[in-house]
Amino acid sequence: MSSLLDYEKSGGLVAAIAQDYGTGEILMIAWMNKEAFDETLATGRACYFSRSRNRLWRKGEESGNVQIVHEIRVDCDRDAVLLKVEQVGDAACHEGYRTCFFRKVVNNELITDGARIFDPKEVYKK
Amino acid sequence: MSSLLDYEKSGGLVAAIAQDYGTGEILMIAWMNKEAFDETLATGRACYFSRSRNRLWRKGEESGNVQIVHEIRVDCDRDAVLLKVEQVGDAACHEGYRTCFFRKVVNNELITDGARIFDPKEVYKK
Repeated sequence: MSSLLDYEKSGGLVAAIAQDYGTGEILMIAWMNKEAFDETLATGRACYFSRSRNRLWRKGEESGNVQIVHEIRVDCDRDAVLLKVEQVGDAACHEGYRTCFFRKVVNNELITDGARIFDPKEVYKK
Repeated sequence: MSSLLDYEKSGGLVAAIAQDYGTGEILMIAWMNKEAFDETLATGRACYFSRSRNRLWRKGEESGNVQIVHEIRVDCDRDAVLLKVEQVGDAACHEGYRTCFFRKVVNNELITDGARIFDPKEVYKK
């Protein structure tokens, strides 16, 4: 099924960019192995591979903020995918921001200008 | 200077997404080492690190299609950057398409629907 992609260049993984389907905003970048890509195709929900936890990461499994996949695009050398998604809960980042790219570089410093949607302490109760 | 970023998680590299500054279209994804990121900051032109050629890759060095950087954003764990760029020549992909993501997945096949701007045989004369 996902012989569509070349997993060899990054040790069994491809990069996966999630972009808001409506606004075009980049929400996050993560990784997929073959299993994650196949599950994403089959379910229409973004499933990544967490390198730090070394397991499938069904986006939203804790927070409820799943990503509904509207389109999947593949780059020229087939080692990256672009998911056009609808972000449930309006926040993709585990820090509670709409996008993981909530900071910009200004004069060699990181300035936060992204919108914070939720307080992570409230959402990820351990 | 680029202690702004965490290069350790991917062996000295960070992922770099280029997004059209005006339209929001994702043009490509590549990699940067510290030297490439510092050069990008210093020059305002996108400079990547080519894993296949194992050297700095000044985008547009052959084709002339440089990327003028308008904004640099950094993700939550500081191992990915988002460049908002102006794509000179209107094509980011070495295959002549506007974006490297010129194909989408439809029924487990890759369908090309991206706009081809130039013929690579004409541009990359060897």
